[in-house]
This record gives sequence, C-alpha cells and structure tokens, in this order.
Amino acid sequence: MREKISIIENIMSANDRLAEENRILLDQAGVFAINIMASPGAGKTMFILKTLEALDGRLRMGVIEGDIATSIDTEKAIAAGMPAVQINTGGDCHLDAVMVSNALKALPLNELDVVIIENVGNLVCPASFALGTHINVLIASIPEGDDKPYKYPGIYRGIQALVINKIDLLPYVQFKMDYFSEGVNILNPGLVTFPVSAMTGEGMHNWVNWLVNQVKG
Amino acid sequence: MREKISIIENIMSANDRLAEENRILLDQAGVFAINIMASPGAGKTMFILKTLEALDGRLRMGVIEGDIATSIDTEKAIAAGMPAVQINTGGDCHLDAVMVSNALKALPLNELDVVIIENVGNLVCPASFALGTHINVLIASIPEGDDKPYKYPGIYRGIQALVINKIDLLPYVQFKMDYFSEGVNILNPGLVTFPVSAMTGEGMHNWVNWLVNQVKG
Repeated sequence: MREKISIIENIMSANDRLAEENRILLDQAGVFAINIMASPGAGKTMFILKTLEALDGRLRMGVIEGDIATSIDTEKAIAAGMPAVQINTGGDCHLDAVMVSNALKALPLNELDVVIIENVGNLVCPASFALGTHINVLIASIPEGDDKPYKYPGIYRGIQALVINKIDLLPYVQFKMDYFSEGVNILNPGLVTFPVSAMTGEGMHNWVNWLVNQVKG
Repeated sequence: MREKISIIENIMSANDRLAEENRILLDQAGVFAINIMASPGAGKTMFILKTLEALDGRLRMGVIEGDIATSIDTEKAIAAGMPAVQINTGGDCHLDAVMVSNALKALPLNELDVVIIENVGNLVCPASFALGTHINVLIASIPEGDDKPYKYPGIYRGIQALVINKIDLLPYVQFKMDYFSEGVNILNPGLVTFPVSAMTGEGMHNWVNWLVNQVKG
C-alpha cells in the first residue's frame, strides 16, 4: 500500500514540474491557456467553435483536442479556421502535462493570444492533473442533472470559471438551478458562472467578454 | 516503463480473481447481476428506478450505487422500496471487484433475483474493471451527442446491451441516429439496443421484458 502511494506521488510531481514548464513556454509566447473539462457530451467542442465565432477576431485562438480516440474534434476546429492539434490518449482518461507539452510544440504560439485545451470527457480524472494552463474551466450541462456538484466535488473545487451549457433544454428536463448553484457555492464560493446555449448562441457574449478581459486585462 | 506495466497487470489480475469470487457468490444465491455504466448525467439512477416500476414485481431487485461522494442515489432507491447499498469511492473514477464484494455482503442476496450495480459516471475507467456481474450495460444519452461510440470505443466493445436514454429530447438536439448506430455496429456488431425515455416511460417495457428473459430464461 505504501509503495503504491509513493508511485503516485512521483508521477504527480513529474507532471507538476512539466506543467510549470508549459506555463513558462506559454508566458514567454504571450499566450493565455485554458483547460476545458466536462462530461462526455456536455458540448465542449461546439462551445469552443462558438467561442471563436463570438470573439469575432478580438483574440487569435488555437486549440488542443484531447480524446481517447479519433480526430473528429480537430477536423471541426481546422474547418473553422483555427490552428488545432489532436492528442489521442489511447486509453487514458485525462490529459497530462507531457501530452500538452508535445502538442504546444506543434502550435504556432507566437501567432496566438489564447489556446484552449479540450480535455478528455470525464468529471473525475482530469481534475488531478495540472497542464500548465492559466485557468481551468468546467462546462456543466443542463441535461446532466442538477446533482453533479454534489457527486463530483473535486472538479468543481479546482476551477476558475463555470459554464452551464444547453440552457435551451431547461424547459424539457428536470433541473433545479437553485439546488445546483447551492452545491457549486459550497465547493467554490463566488465562482464566476456563465449560463449559455452554445447551440443558440445565448449567453456566449458574456463569456467571451470576460475571456477577452482575462487575456488582455 | 516496464515496471509500471507489471504493476498494472498485478492489480488487474487481483481484481479479476475477486470478480470471479463475486460471480460465484451471486450464482450460489441465484442472483443475476448487471453492471450499468454511463457518462455522468445519462440518467442511470432514474433508469434503475423506472426499471423497478416497469418490472411491476416480476423480479425482486436490489441495487449497489457507486459514486465519488454522497448517498443521494441510494436514498432514492431505498425510498422506492429497494434494498440498496452505497459505495463512495473517494476519488476513484470507477468501481472495482473489492468494493462490490463488500457491498454484496450488505445485501439480502437470498431474497433477490437481480442486483443492478450503478457504476461511477464515466465512459473510460469503468470499462477496465470486471466486477463479477453477468452482463455489462451501457446507457448512452441523446443529449451527449452521436459521436460517443467513436470517441469512447473501449466501453462500447465490452457491453452486452445498450440503452439509448432521453429519446424524448431528440426533437431538441442534433443527433443523427444512423451515424451513432454505425459507430456502435463497428465496435459491437449485433448488440441488443433499447431506445428509451426513462422520464416518460417510452421503451421501458421492451427493456424490462428482455431483462426478465435474461434472469429467468
């Protein structure tokens, strides 16, 4: 048992050291980086594409797409005109700083203001691995249900902004916003929150204005 | 690198051995066990509660609820009149055979026909850990999107039945059933599939009739 714990500690500290190197590389290039985490199917990729659209040229954006398999998301990003790199983790349930370090080398950092890293769809594992980004953002999603902060507290604790996506589905599902917000507030008081529908575009301007302030402010 | 691989092998074989013991325990008690896996918020708990309702007494059912934290789901199951045990994994992203072994001891197996084990909401990690159940069932969900078989192939390969939940939301989201089904068929040809809405009850009788046949047939 003690041996297992010491192995995990070693992995974590190597990851943290590499995450720091990623941060230095990003800062030297003047690039603000965001780690976007969410359940599978919360709408990460569409949210990123609609962020590019709502930015309307105010920031130059690149993306790193993390998936177990496929390059579906990177194809979408490139089709939208963004520099994009795909990471396939094989079976791994999260990105780590090594994978991101390799991906950053494949992006034209000097031509970018912001890099969005789309983590593997998962509310557990990604919360434990620093990537070197400036902020962590979680995308919650209305059809996922209002009890997720209570059930996945770790990921809600470690974020600097929360997006609540698919608010267009509120009329069709059981979702008590008060109960959800109370759970978030216990774990991460005062967390900045953006209710949006990436599909309809509702709320995207509030998010994008905040993002521009973070990057340029 | 070689050391890391050998450690993983040891963990897996210990888990597999315990999974076998769980299976023997279940068979001796004449209990059919189902491992239900899904993303967070795909509707596992509601699906289980509606399964109990649709069974209408044809099978005596108990549940084991797996979550990172809280006992919300177990409280719902007990309120519905089922014997239920909660497993809190702490930070672990999946159940394993040890946790299930302990939980089985807390259930009145001799009074049950079927035990449903609700795994942690996650499309990656649970696929790698046998629990000793007779079948693995995945609940996909319409608002998750139609690309999930392509992105999370491992979990689609290892299941004996697929539930497609929240079909009542089909009119409100972009979901191409042909594209989804094609992906499933590549990974798991001929997989038995149940499109349902646990909320409205649509399709639940097909699933429940199939389940009764599995258990008693």
